[in-house]
Amino acid sequence: MEIHSKLLNDSHFIYDFPLSQLRLIPDGDNTWFLLIPMREGKKDWSDLSQDEQHQLTDEIDLVCKEIQKHKDPDKLNVASLGNMVPQLHIHVIARYKDDRAWPGPIWGSVANNEFDNKEVLFWQDLFKSR
Amino acid sequence: MEIHSKLLNDSHFIYDFPLSQLRLIPDGDNTWFLLIPMREGKKDWSDLSQDEQHQLTDEIDLVCKEIQKHKDPDKLNVASLGNMVPQLHIHVIARYKDDRAWPGPIWGSVANNEFDNKEVLFWQDLFKSR
Repeated sequence: MEIHSKLLNDSHFIYDFPLSQLRLIPDGDNTWFLLIPMREGKKDWSDLSQDEQHQLTDEIDLVCKEIQKHKDPDKLNVASLGNMVPQLHIHVIARYKDDRAWPGPIWGSVANNEFDNKEVLFWQDLFKSR
Repeated sequence: MEIHSKLLNDSHFIYDFPLSQLRLIPDGDNTWFLLIPMREGKKDWSDLSQDEQHQLTDEIDLVCKEIQKHKDPDKLNVASLGNMVPQLHIHVIARYKDDRAWPGPIWGSVANNEFDNKEVLFWQDLFKSR
């Protein structure tokens, strides 16, 4: 299955779960993952079957728990918006009370810090070795 | 279990699912639901047990499908943000390519149209009679 070019260009490959490909948006401030269910032609959450939705939620849970373990966020944002790119994708984002957009939504705001490419390897290794 | 006063004041009761209370935000432009899992002390998606997360996803799916049937959205937004109110709640929102915030996130923007209170009864009746 093909991933939309905008999602591909905006993020780094991290790991393939049974349903979704996990990718990391290179944001220097906030740890920001995308989960992209690898099923053709899905736009909305409810386009997935019940089994797929349960699997998706298990994958969201796993990503949330790894972020909590390693990045100590004040809050997690979990969101399927897809107004920009119609292909179904779920954002899982670590939020902090002093981050650049708090308490507003983070989409559309620009990071203050440069992204460290070591983050890609860190998360690839972490999910590979689970 | 108590629902945070800000969530209560900002929305109308619609229906009690097995896990979540469904509430409607009175937005004159976009159909905007909240699902509030009725479990004490939950802040993030991953604070729920696996069974509860599966149930939540079933309730999200159901709300999505009723919105699609009755409001013909271009896209559905499903999001757990909770930066303003820490109690876990999930937004399920009908989005349109010509709505006031498209393609940006809708949080923080103000409706152009007045809310019609008949919507509350419409959705209450619809979910009651399912």
